[in-house]
Amino acid sequence: MDNRFFGTPTRELLEQKERERSGWNPVTYVAEAIEALKQGLGDDKVVLGLSGGVDSSVSAILLHKAIGARLHCIFVDTGLMRKNEHDEVLAAYKGMGLNVTSVRAGAKFLGDLAGVVDPEQKRKIIGRDFIEVFDAEAQKLKDIKWLAQGTIYPDILESFSAHKPGVSVKSHHNVGGLPEKMNLKIVEPLRLLFKDEVRRVGRELGMASELLGRHPFPGPGLGVRVLGEVTPEKIAILQEADKIFTDALRAEGLYDKVWQAGAILLPVQSTGVTKGARTFEYAVALRCVNSVDAMTADWVRLPYDFLETVSNDIINTVQGVNRVVYDISMKPPATIEWE
Amino acid sequence: MDNRFFGTPTRELLEQKERERSGWNPVTYVAEAIEALKQGLGDDKVVLGLSGGVDSSVSAILLHKAIGARLHCIFVDTGLMRKNEHDEVLAAYKGMGLNVTSVRAGAKFLGDLAGVVDPEQKRKIIGRDFIEVFDAEAQKLKDIKWLAQGTIYPDILESFSAHKPGVSVKSHHNVGGLPEKMNLKIVEPLRLLFKDEVRRVGRELGMASELLGRHPFPGPGLGVRVLGEVTPEKIAILQEADKIFTDALRAEGLYDKVWQAGAILLPVQSTGVTKGARTFEYAVALRCVNSVDAMTADWVRLPYDFLETVSNDIINTVQGVNRVVYDISMKPPATIEWE
Repeated sequence: MDNRFFGTPTRELLEQKERERSGWNPVTYVAEAIEALKQGLGDDKVVLGLSGGVDSSVSAILLHKAIGARLHCIFVDTGLMRKNEHDEVLAAYKGMGLNVTSVRAGAKFLGDLAGVVDPEQKRKIIGRDFIEVFDAEAQKLKDIKWLAQGTIYPDILESFSAHKPGVSVKSHHNVGGLPEKMNLKIVEPLRLLFKDEVRRVGRELGMASELLGRHPFPGPGLGVRVLGEVTPEKIAILQEADKIFTDALRAEGLYDKVWQAGAILLPVQSTGVTKGARTFEYAVALRCVNSVDAMTADWVRLPYDFLETVSNDIINTVQGVNRVVYDISMKPPATIEWE
Repeated sequence: MDNRFFGTPTRELLEQKERERSGWNPVTYVAEAIEALKQGLGDDKVVLGLSGGVDSSVSAILLHKAIGARLHCIFVDTGLMRKNEHDEVLAAYKGMGLNVTSVRAGAKFLGDLAGVVDPEQKRKIIGRDFIEVFDAEAQKLKDIKWLAQGTIYPDILESFSAHKPGVSVKSHHNVGGLPEKMNLKIVEPLRLLFKDEVRRVGRELGMASELLGRHPFPGPGLGVRVLGEVTPEKIAILQEADKIFTDALRAEGLYDKVWQAGAILLPVQSTGVTKGARTFEYAVALRCVNSVDAMTADWVRLPYDFLETVSNDIINTVQGVNRVVYDISMKPPATIEWE
């Protein structure tokens, strides 16, 4: 078995990675990976959780090239994604021929989040719900032998620095107890790749740049961008505001120039005046940062004309929002996400 | 009695104002006002509530020139002013020779605000407390005949448009039932002046530009800039952040170029990372607007270098704050203040 893709990574493997990095190229990698995955997986069936992000998407396409329909993808709609995002990405996955099951679980997530305001508690609920939904769907599949994960090299490095080497590698996609319960082995097609290498592999595989150029997005999605209690109404408001911001970034050619951008709903009563009457509505914060590795991040000096247009569009068209602010906090000590 | 200063204003008076405006000058005005106030007030005693703002300060100096120590000023420390503001302004008042009593009532205001989150309710409590404190102090004074108010011409116009002409003029300084209770007559030395004319009168009276150039500040003070529940801890945090912002505006020569600026404390749990540990702290919003009449207002495109410095200073030095945002909302529909 090729230890670049299978089994527990060791420190020796990391050193090998460093040696190989200079000569690395995506053409060779794709060819070698497909061959190694074919060999290692044989006629086995594999399950993989798609998140819409780059890592899980490239992992899926690579595995699909190797084993075709024996790769079963599960794509959970948490109800906490961007506006229309689940449907658009699902269509793209299907367009690339993936064998993908979409699970609509928004009602479960939003139901379990009702009344919860503590950020840590919210994250735990979202993580637990994801595992439950994914596990339940995976267990419907017959004769699955492998769980594929979109782990990339920085995840491995992080695990090595946080834990004893080679002992406890972070379970990247929160799959919980599934490997033990279903007696699954783990395959990680990208675990020796840096993010830029993942993108180059994706491009080599013919994936659309809209999918490859996607900004990082938090695992718990808009669940941690609605501060405090999450409600269906707040998620809908935030989706509208976020869409205006994101669409404007794309329209102005700014989307690909920044690391990450999004809107945050602040659960405050902000005063406004509409048609002579006082209103008490939410404020929306816009966050847009540049970063090399997400460990540090600078807020982007977006053009003031651009910010003015986006702010006015949000305030004038999104019901329930009467104020917009721009986050001007560096990481550290502020984090990229507010929760 | 000169109806420019005494009695109920009528529509005829407003028309007279319009006719006179072209030939108006502060030298003549000051001379005529002092003479008219001397004549109208005779040996009577007058009470006036100082707020630290331009209108009440200029009113006081004008009356002081006319009747000297028979003007009794009351300056209430609500505990909701900017850092050190009460003491600094009090020293300036005393330096100008005013007969002023400072009432330290912060404990009362903060006590009554404990547990209250509704903005309207907060405003009512602050207004009621102000009246109670002012009235109690005024009633200690002997033989007071007049209540002086810092009403200016736009206040009069507003009352005329909002109510039946000449019937109900807005009680500008929230003096409540004091005039009836103490059988006081009203004197309004600035009620036919626009804001710029008030400043010119103040300059003619030799007042310091720090006092005349002060930004507008909401009546309820920081009580409506701490969103939600007001606590002594939150007021102290906001005072520190506000001071950094205001001092920086002055240092960079920006203070006098903008209409109004201040900081707002957002009662959200924002995530940060300090020395490797997660923190959950407040976010501070900076608001800086330009306006001609406060009816509409544009947010100011402050230099990004300036915003970066202020943001970093606040986050790095104010305990309890780990995030700063800049308000990019136009009025209308957003108001200048958040509550």
